[in-house]
Amino acid sequence: MKIGILGTGRVARTLGGGFSTRGHDVYLGSRDVIRVTSDTSGESSFNAWHASYPDVKLVTLKQAASEGDLVVNATDGPGSLSALREAGEDRFGSKVLIDVADPLDWSHGFPPSLTVCNADSLGEQIQRALPNVKVVKALNTVHNPIMVNPRLVGGGDHTTFLSGDDLAAKAYVAKLLRTEFGWEDVVDLGDIRTARGTEMMLLLWAELSAALQTPMFNLKLVR
Amino acid sequence: MKIGILGTGRVARTLGGGFSTRGHDVYLGSRDVIRVTSDTSGESSFNAWHASYPDVKLVTLKQAASEGDLVVNATDGPGSLSALREAGEDRFGSKVLIDVADPLDWSHGFPPSLTVCNADSLGEQIQRALPNVKVVKALNTVHNPIMVNPRLVGGGDHTTFLSGDDLAAKAYVAKLLRTEFGWEDVVDLGDIRTARGTEMMLLLWAELSAALQTPMFNLKLVR
Repeated sequence: MKIGILGTGRVARTLGGGFSTRGHDVYLGSRDVIRVTSDTSGESSFNAWHASYPDVKLVTLKQAASEGDLVVNATDGPGSLSALREAGEDRFGSKVLIDVADPLDWSHGFPPSLTVCNADSLGEQIQRALPNVKVVKALNTVHNPIMVNPRLVGGGDHTTFLSGDDLAAKAYVAKLLRTEFGWEDVVDLGDIRTARGTEMMLLLWAELSAALQTPMFNLKLVR
Repeated sequence: MKIGILGTGRVARTLGGGFSTRGHDVYLGSRDVIRVTSDTSGESSFNAWHASYPDVKLVTLKQAASEGDLVVNATDGPGSLSALREAGEDRFGSKVLIDVADPLDWSHGFPPSLTVCNADSLGEQIQRALPNVKVVKALNTVHNPIMVNPRLVGGGDHTTFLSGDDLAAKAYVAKLLRTEFGWEDVVDLGDIRTARGTEMMLLLWAELSAALQTPMFNLKLVR
């Protein structure tokens, strides 16, 4: 499968590496390919990461949106809408877009706040901006290594949530999370509006990261 | 121990009944004792509940705040600040106040929104309104029967969170939750600011209640 991932940061790299390792063709889309590949800051640079995943293709946002059978928004939440606009609505057609971004504003330091919440969410904003796309909010409540390897925490015995208006798209994403990454408990919350719930959980997530002194945790839904 | 509970709704009754059953003297505080006892609406009325817990005393907000060695805010979140004002700052002294309220606005139907969130919280507002009181936010992320009986869900194998500025007050509340109600995993998130996290989780809580068609669930922190 061809997977277009918007973004080249840590979340995009983790998802890109995860899908590539499992045999998919991954296209990582950047706003500025030259800048990304000019970074010589060492171990944390894109080039250093890319050396371990040479099969992943670095392309523009437009190309990543065009090439992917499935597209993932892994850009920084506050910049997601402008990145999607730059990719171009026509490139997405009626594809499934997995949105893993959180609208976290860290500009005032810790704790972060959300740039949108309560009566709206980033997931809903993206769905409104791309009305033909099937947006599925997913994986946005866990640290990125856990996204592609839930067994890193508690043997994988914890929960991830889906929000989206298209039932078939959610079923497809749920199956993908189970078969590709080993997620055991994938809970469908309802339509894209329910993304308010998982995005607003990020403040608890941030406080837990601080209290536990590690982001390597997750929550399990206990019925 | 004498426990003052502000409120006479379902949450206040559950906590009042829970503490009373465990041998404590409970004072439920109402804005309007006459109105509460005049309700003859049947099974869901205060009188019907009170018949099962005759040892619980129905008093004014001022009396509940005065009598309690420990005070619990179980009023409706959007009305909590005015209820605390009516009880009177002088009645609280420097007591511990457990705040279980959530600032949920249901006036537009489902889903609810929060009357305060993101850069502030009800817990912080209460601490600012009562600067000498030791506010501990607790139990606000579970349906009220679970507050006093966590074993109702998953054998009690799930988590509750504390937020508050006073370490000794939080240690006291953590012990109370463990010994009185059987909570096994009580996580101290940090100062009262962290109440933003647990209050903002209520939108996920509401969506989960709808998706699962029951409020009888909780989340477990998996490290």
